[in-house]
Amino acid sequence: MLENRHLVQPDDFTVEEIDSILDLGMKIKKTPEDYTRVCEGKLLATLFYEPSTRTRLSFEAAMNRLGGRIIGFSDPSASSVSKGESLEDTITIVGNYVDIIAMRHFESGAANIASRASKKPFINAGDGKNQHPTQTLTDLITIKANRGSLDNMTIGMCGDLKYGRTVHSLAKAMSRYTGIKFIFIAPKELEMPDYVKEQISNVEYEETTSLEEAMAKCDVLYMTRVQRERFDDPQQYERLKDSYILDTDKMSLAKDDMMVLHPLPRVNEISVEVDEDPRAKYFEQAEYGMYVRMALIMKLLGCKVVD
Amino acid sequence: MLENRHLVQPDDFTVEEIDSILDLGMKIKKTPEDYTRVCEGKLLATLFYEPSTRTRLSFEAAMNRLGGRIIGFSDPSASSVSKGESLEDTITIVGNYVDIIAMRHFESGAANIASRASKKPFINAGDGKNQHPTQTLTDLITIKANRGSLDNMTIGMCGDLKYGRTVHSLAKAMSRYTGIKFIFIAPKELEMPDYVKEQISNVEYEETTSLEEAMAKCDVLYMTRVQRERFDDPQQYERLKDSYILDTDKMSLAKDDMMVLHPLPRVNEISVEVDEDPRAKYFEQAEYGMYVRMALIMKLLGCKVVD
Amino acid sequence: MLENRHLVQPDDFTVEEIDSILDLGMKIKKTPEDYTRVCEGKLLATLFYEPSTRTRLSFEAAMNRLGGRIIGFSDPSASSVSKGESLEDTITIVGNYVDIIAMRHFESGAANIASRASKKPFINAGDGKNQHPTQTLTDLITIKANRGSLDNMTIGMCGDLKYGRTVHSLAKAMSRYTGIKFIFIAPKELEMPDYVKEQISNVEYEETTSLEEAMAKCDVLYMTRVQRERFDDPQQYERLKDSYILDTDKMSLAKDDMMVLHPLPRVNEISVEVDEDPRAKYFEQAEYGMYVRMALIMKLLGCKVVD
Repeated sequence: MLENRHLVQPDDFTVEEIDSILDLGMKIKKTPEDYTRVCEGKLLATLFYEPSTRTRLSFEAAMNRLGGRIIGFSDPSASSVSKGESLEDTITIVGNYVDIIAMRHFESGAANIASRASKKPFINAGDGKNQHPTQTLTDLITIKANRGSLDNMTIGMCGDLKYGRTVHSLAKAMSRYTGIKFIFIAPKELEMPDYVKEQISNVEYEETTSLEEAMAKCDVLYMTRVQRERFDDPQQYERLKDSYILDTDKMSLAKDDMMVLHPLPRVNEISVEVDEDPRAKYFEQAEYGMYVRMALIMKLLGCKVVD
Repeated sequence: MLENRHLVQPDDFTVEEIDSILDLGMKIKKTPEDYTRVCEGKLLATLFYEPSTRTRLSFEAAMNRLGGRIIGFSDPSASSVSKGESLEDTITIVGNYVDIIAMRHFESGAANIASRASKKPFINAGDGKNQHPTQTLTDLITIKANRGSLDNMTIGMCGDLKYGRTVHSLAKAMSRYTGIKFIFIAPKELEMPDYVKEQISNVEYEETTSLEEAMAKCDVLYMTRVQRERFDDPQQYERLKDSYILDTDKMSLAKDDMMVLHPLPRVNEISVEVDEDPRAKYFEQAEYGMYVRMALIMKLLGCKVVD
Repeated sequence: MLENRHLVQPDDFTVEEIDSILDLGMKIKKTPEDYTRVCEGKLLATLFYEPSTRTRLSFEAAMNRLGGRIIGFSDPSASSVSKGESLEDTITIVGNYVDIIAMRHFESGAANIASRASKKPFINAGDGKNQHPTQTLTDLITIKANRGSLDNMTIGMCGDLKYGRTVHSLAKAMSRYTGIKFIFIAPKELEMPDYVKEQISNVEYEETTSLEEAMAKCDVLYMTRVQRERFDDPQQYERLKDSYILDTDKMSLAKDDMMVLHPLPRVNEISVEVDEDPRAKYFEQAEYGMYVRMALIMKLLGCKVVD
């Protein structure tokens, strides 16, 4: 039962629980008109202690599409919330106003503190460098919807694997399924950290610096951005950056049923020409982000479709 | 058919299409209770890349009064939308969340770019110095509602005609009707630019620097603000400013059925004493702005009153 | 009849009118499901010229829980509202969009000016150092709900009684009931001002600097924060501050049915250990703030439960 639970990090839920959310999200995408009133009379708080417009809009679209309502703030810089009040007090008070809370916070660990104070279902919408579990659910549902299953595939992760919160969470989440293989594609400076590799020690993986070489093996290619600021030596960045840009040339090396994902926003790490390729699934992925949040909210609130 | 169309500039729509929007707006104003659920289940995004509280509130009141819902942002300064993502990508993603988009942008031409990327109906809520078509619809509906028609009238435009986006658009829009005459009332420094006069070359107009002299001839007087910053010579501003302030003395020279319009906000270019005059229609005009946006949203979404 | 009235300061309403709001608020708290649609089709504007997230969220939760809708702004710094437009004009225009207005303003007296311009019911959500009547209603409903009546009690007010807007309003509001006694507990620097004492001259009160001594006599203890910045001499603050912190030791001196209130946010003036004491009612008080605002909005709009 997911009713009245919190979601702070992806493995708060069992594989079965996650599957039930993904399946509901796929059902909603097929017949959204069946769900327009399931959360009528319910109120979601979106507490964004750090701006993240995309995530906030996705949550607010999800709740509105379920017939629920929203209160919240998108940037507390000038807000009375910061009048020296503890996070626990804010959560207690807001929890008296609403039925469910989604919080974004700039500090790692804030979601954990807040969830312990919350009497209402609490969703971590990203806490600092730590966790962003609804992004992971978004990644999982897109893969499952396109491949029919989360088992038996090779997942390439490309770009900044050192600092990328989304690839760490996704690697960990996928390591709970069977027949999974990873290819970590990154420059030396940005390779997958040891502590993540240890968390997924049951899974086979290889490492490479060449996206070109990895292309043909991937069933899923998860792209992330390589940022200039991550390099001590700017010349090294200039030498490397193009190798981590996905273009139609590199796409020509990939399997016909491969899929490209990206957590977005994308800057230039995927050429716009790739958008036309049917294997480019990153915009569909953003759309699935809304549907999986609809499913998550329904499950945590115990809302059901009335026949 | 207006369903699924975009509105970037006023002449994207034919005279007949505009008339159908204005007529629906007037009908809604008469019986708003018939329209409280016509957009139920529909979602509007208000993407304001530049704050414009009045325009945003008007759009959001309109959508709420139709039973629809809203997501959006009112100032993207600190938002993730600006993490280097292209406008096209943002529109694509938001278009996957919502049914219709209204966007305000600080750059001329941004609305055109965004509308081409949008798979959902797109409304330009003002792009830089360029266009603000829902203000023009607001002006047109107020004139039509009060005079019964948009033909056969003399329209005085007073104040800053050089930089005033609203008067340029209104002049162009009114030039599509028959029997229209314009009087452009402005100081030399701020007179109507040649490129606008060329766009309305089918219409008779006269130019004057004297509001007093023009008063008796106008059926509609459209006031705008004369800003000190527009003058190279501050003394010139001081000499002129009072001639462009509308007060009860000047109103006594006008026709009994003349109407005064203003895009608002007004600072001091119309004395508050004029507010009591039944010919002052600028607050009614702001109200019509909400009704015409309700009509526009309904038409673009193809929403109809269910009997 | 409260329909179409304004609330600028607590004594705009008679004791009977206030009682009818409090009683409705208590009824709503018991069966909120009866009220989820009473304001359907109604629109509230929350105009916050100064950020106050807690108050705004309380109003917006209230209106959403009644089935109504909201438009507004939470910080007008960069907003077109401030393009030199008068407050009266803004209220006139917004009043054409919505059915009821709640305004927070940084200037004392702004609520009075705005209410006179408003053709729709207007609620003062705090104007500068002046008034915050919905906080007073929140205090009153919490006391009445817990004690069954607003008569016959001793109310201790502790902390900064000199600058505390909430204690001034509450003292005045409670002085309209019978059998009321006040104990003002404050350091000399922050004692209750004479002009407030004059307004409640019909009521018996005593003054003390010792919270410990007052504890046993109070039926209600209203805590406020003692801020370092209020003291000319920082050493004086250091000497005093602990005496005005409520902890379990001091609570052990109090009556069994005493209740502790606080307008929140609380910083350290009440130890978190007190939260577990059943006499701590400040979180319940915040919740009542939402219910009493629901009742107020219903009364001013004339909305009723349809059987």
